Amino acid sequence: MSLQSLVPGPEPKVTSRVSTGAEGRCRVALAGFGTVGRSAARLLQDAAREVELVAILNRDVDRKRVDWVDGAVRWTDSIEEVLDRPIDVFIELIGGRSPAEDWIRRALARGISVVTANKQVIARDGASLLDAAAANDCHLRFEAAVAGGVPVIRAIESGLAGDRLTRVAGILNGTCNYILTKMEREGTAFADALREAQALGYAEANPSQDIDGFDAQAKLAILAMVALGIQAPPDAIATRSIATVDGVDFRYARRLGCTIRQIAWAERNGDLELCAGVGPTLVPLESPLAAVNGSENLVSIQGRFGGETTFGGRGAGGDPTAVAVLSDVLTIARGARPAVRPRAERSARVSSDAATPYYVRFTVVDRPGIIAALASVFAKYEINIDAILQEPGFPASQRPFIVSLDAAPSAAVNAALAEIGAFDFHLVPMLAMPVLDGRAPAEVTA
Amino acid sequence: MSLQSLVPGPEPKVTSRVSTGAEGRCRVALAGFGTVGRSAARLLQDAAREVELVAILNRDVDRKRVDWVDGAVRWTDSIEEVLDRPIDVFIELIGGRSPAEDWIRRALARGISVVTANKQVIARDGASLLDAAAANDCHLRFEAAVAGGVPVIRAIESGLAGDRLTRVAGILNGTCNYILTKMEREGTAFADALREAQALGYAEANPSQDIDGFDAQAKLAILAMVALGIQAPPDAIATRSIATVDGVDFRYARRLGCTIRQIAWAERNGDLELCAGVGPTLVPLESPLAAVNGSENLVSIQGRFGGETTFGGRGAGGDPTAVAVLSDVLTIARGARPAVRPRAERSARVSSDAATPYYVRFTVVDRPGIIAALASVFAKYEINIDAILQEPGFPASQRPFIVSLDAAPSAAVNAALAEIGAFDFHLVPMLAMPVLDGRAPAEVTA
Repeated sequence: MSLQSLVPGPEPKVTSRVSTGAEGRCRVALAGFGTVGRSAARLLQDAAREVELVAILNRDVDRKRVDWVDGAVRWTDSIEEVLDRPIDVFIELIGGRSPAEDWIRRALARGISVVTANKQVIARDGASLLDAAAANDCHLRFEAAVAGGVPVIRAIESGLAGDRLTRVAGILNGTCNYILTKMEREGTAFADALREAQALGYAEANPSQDIDGFDAQAKLAILAMVALGIQAPPDAIATRSIATVDGVDFRYARRLGCTIRQIAWAERNGDLELCAGVGPTLVPLESPLAAVNGSENLVSIQGRFGGETTFGGRGAGGDPTAVAVLSDVLTIARGARPAVRPRAERSARVSSDAATPYYVRFTVVDRPGIIAALASVFAKYEINIDAILQEPGFPASQRPFIVSLDAAPSAAVNAALAEIGAFDFHLVPMLAMPVLDGRAPAEVTA
Repeated sequence: MSLQSLVPGPEPKVTSRVSTGAEGRCRVALAGFGTVGRSAARLLQDAAREVELVAILNRDVDRKRVDWVDGAVRWTDSIEEVLDRPIDVFIELIGGRSPAEDWIRRALARGISVVTANKQVIARDGASLLDAAAANDCHLRFEAAVAGGVPVIRAIESGLAGDRLTRVAGILNGTCNYILTKMEREGTAFADALREAQALGYAEANPSQDIDGFDAQAKLAILAMVALGIQAPPDAIATRSIATVDGVDFRYARRLGCTIRQIAWAERNGDLELCAGVGPTLVPLESPLAAVNGSENLVSIQGRFGGETTFGGRGAGGDPTAVAVLSDVLTIARGARPAVRPRAERSARVSSDAATPYYVRFTVVDRPGIIAALASVFAKYEINIDAILQEPGFPASQRPFIVSLDAAPSAAVNAALAEIGAFDFHLVPMLAMPVLDGRAPAEVTA
């Protein structure tokens, strides 16, 4: 049975194809039977009143087969076989760019709606895939691709539709937040906290995607597209690693009324410039971002009229991510019209320029004249020093101290730090971090 | 022009009437031109590509007329005139139960969709009004009725649709949160904090709706209907006032690792029993609810699969509330299907029973034997005492101390407190507050 619905609105009228299977249920195929896929299959079966799981696609599928899946479900390793079936929704949970992007495109080309948790594909090809979905009058939904179980994508598209969104900032990577809160609360060293995150399964054996900011970078590119209407290549967003953050930084941050979090932020700067970055950032203790514990995520959206709205919860894990997937499927099954969204504009320029306070940690051989040398360079670039702090208990031969700077353009700070970096008194490279001050933090290259 | 759309799904098929005005825009009439109404009118005019504001209804309308509203808009004080016009959406912002409920019902009866911010009407008559909307195939949307600009209603209906929600807890009244954070941070006395809230326009001259919990009670009844599928008369939800909270309670709460907030909570207890309450509650400092500042709101939703998801932001104010109103209008204008929602069941019973830790403050004339008397009553009801704390600095003639109790059924705690209340050593009535411990707090009557 296939019903037609005519939907009006300011956009050219389209005919929304919503097919349904037996007893009017939405027919779904699931690709990828890993942790999230298994959770999704369970929830889809629980939603059998509205949804009919018809096929599961996985490599080496016989190894994956489980007895709790309904006997009528077809297990296969062939994408062709899946797409040739009469299905309404294709759920892509295999991850990675290839072949996922190709599969999504092929499904959309046949008018099959797609639900995906694939941040890499949506961050890079989301805009053109959304065009393909619109051209074929079907849905492309990806709530699970950002902040797992936290329904921030639809909150932006629908709940904040009446506002003009100016900025997004968030904790988008639970692994980094787990490591940094562990360091903060238990004084654990970075390497030990990372090992523990790996032992708990929060971090991969190669943790670079998480700690160097690439995971959050892709999620941020998606948020920028949806919230700010700017499509930017994720690689153009500056990242800094949390690996150089040390226990002493938390002591100094605390003295400044802050803690340290991996923050991803983006704002529209001028018409088509996206100003964005990902990296460790000082966060005031009274910010909701400072209260995010362990592997939780939090997204803060700034609107011109509504002010700051926050969305928090579990950013990863099989069940929370599967809730996001099923919620997307149910939105389609219940006959929603594909989202009307202003076309995301391709950004002419991605920068990380912003005027923000900074924290800079120096580790030096203590000798007279160092403060004077630093101060004269900062003065040359018209950067005000807010405070200089030195915690006791370190040997004179390797003594970390910090300089906090008043809000200054990141270009000036970067230039000053490059000049200071050339001095011969550094024992450890400087660590510079922006301070979140209600505005977006700027990124520094030091 | 009127288009028909046929929408499929597991529910009986309905024909969704979506009319549109000139150039395919959604025609809107606005009733109520106060703070929120004015903000809404501005945002509606900004959204002129999709929405056409055709009429503004207010008592004594000539007094309200402003020159920045488009000249084509009809100003009137007649509901008949508004409903006789060809409009698609009626926005109700007059507040109060009468005549608002009647107007909403009349609009729905004519197949006109309704967007409202009216918590009293939705809390009491929401279920029957939703039935009326469904019978007439139009929308009844009320995002603005709970937590102002925070899009929590649609998050529940759509973003968490794939989960089974078990509990809601939140800070739903910004006035109480402003007063309590002021007391916490600046040591302000309750009466002074209330006066300040009144001076700032956060609290009414008669502040009972806020501080005694009736405002949060209505919002909680709406959340329970939407999230838990139970429709309960709001008056059946137990409330306790924040007026008896004293500065010393924050000192004791801090020693227990907590602060104090007005918390509204509800959970489904058994099949059709709603367990719910509103009142001052000890909140652990690490809870996201403890980090809510000033007049902000935060709603925490517990799902069986997704865990805890939080939604925070501005709970009141013209612009944030108007964003929620416009977002609802845009959802309708963009051709969404009226929400498919499981019919909220009428609750057989509303209780506030739960097993939870308690905080009890006693103010007594100090004399031997008081602790022994309390301890023996608690022992009789099999309630464990966790700690007894007494802050220094009070005269022996009026000395507050607190007893913290391990988790115990609220019925047992209430019985014990009734017995203890009969002793003759009280100088001030006891203050008992539940402690939020990840589970719903119970309500006590003391």
